[in-house]
Amino acid sequence: MRQANHTFTTTTNGPGLYEITAEVCNWCYQQEMDSALLTLFIQHTSASLTIQENADPDVCLDLQDFFEGITPRNGPYRHSAEGPDDMPAHIKSALTQVQLTIPLRSSRLTLGTWQGIYIFEHRDHRHSRQVVAHLIGN
Amino acid sequence: MRQANHTFTTTTNGPGLYEITAEVCNWCYQQEMDSALLTLFIQHTSASLTIQENADPDVCLDLQDFFEGITPRNGPYRHSAEGPDDMPAHIKSALTQVQLTIPLRSSRLTLGTWQGIYIFEHRDHRHSRQVVAHLIGN
Amino acid sequence: MRQANHTFTTTTNGPGLYEITAEVCNWCYQQEMDSALLTLFIQHTSASLTIQENADPDVCLDLQDFFEGITPRNGPYRHSAEGPDDMPAHIKSALTQVQLTIPLRSSRLTLGTWQGIYIFEHRDHRHSRQVVAHLIGN
Repeated sequence: MRQANHTFTTTTNGPGLYEITAEVCNWCYQQEMDSALLTLFIQHTSASLTIQENADPDVCLDLQDFFEGITPRNGPYRHSAEGPDDMPAHIKSALTQVQLTIPLRSSRLTLGTWQGIYIFEHRDHRHSRQVVAHLIGN
Repeated sequence: MRQANHTFTTTTNGPGLYEITAEVCNWCYQQEMDSALLTLFIQHTSASLTIQENADPDVCLDLQDFFEGITPRNGPYRHSAEGPDDMPAHIKSALTQVQLTIPLRSSRLTLGTWQGIYIFEHRDHRHSRQVVAHLIGN
Repeated sequence: MRQANHTFTTTTNGPGLYEITAEVCNWCYQQEMDSALLTLFIQHTSASLTIQENADPDVCLDLQDFFEGITPRNGPYRHSAEGPDDMPAHIKSALTQVQLTIPLRSSRLTLGTWQGIYIFEHRDHRHSRQVVAHLIGN
């Protein structure tokens, strides 16, 4: 049994879903573990992780609209020093995932046919986002 | 230290919560690991996983109503090719869990007294849902 | 490769976020594992786990307000035997996390600069909350 560690860095440019499936799959495959467990952990509280359909890009746009709709920018927030997109970002982060854990079989992630791994960016400005990856298996 | 893998298949028949606690507990117990970590991963984006109270069935019905209420079927969705239950299903999936990780002690899941493991089905039609299970421990 | 187990007990006194970052970090560090995976699992369905900004306490208050707002106490709930805070608590729990999995490097959690680990209490009365911790690594 052994472990592997890596950090994925993604530059985001405004709100939306940024797919990282290919780079995560590639890194996992290169670790040459047959059976294993992958954990992805995003080191932020205003961007998050989600697994969604990656066939029709409209799904990502509709998701973004939904989360925008339930966390209005002009809400009665105490925490607003960094701008109107700040507190809504924290709420969207709490409603989605800070981490994802996915089993591997035969060196491959057990993602379903239509599942893609996304960074969900909630802030307006350009950001560099870090996702810590940890693999344990053999 | 060793690993065990399995896939649970559940047939769902319309929206609602389908409990899989007993079959998951049984499979874990049969792997004869004393201390271990279980991961459940659902391979879909229109059904999800959740842990909820399994004492009063009304909790599941109220949960279903809540999620139905915040994701109206007649919303302004771009992605609607598969029907009015399609995009709401993806949103409900994003708001709940695609995976659950639960420690085992003395060969048993450390679920609390009232906690049950559920597949949360969001689509109207009959579906066959796959949940990948991974156990690591000794 | 080895494992370590612990249970954290926190007394809560009404709705809100209770930070447990320091005690979790300390326990992990004491296990003297260099690279490892931590899982925290809360054994309840009316309190949950979340990772949020721990710099400005207003973030926690705004989060609490948001969740209070989307799960009104006077909703049309079937499950109301334990009071008006009961079913909203289950919904808030479903919308946040029952478990968190976080990698460790150099014996330390890979939390981002502003990330804190919180128990999110959803009930009005005083409760004792149990969080199961599991560490695997070497």
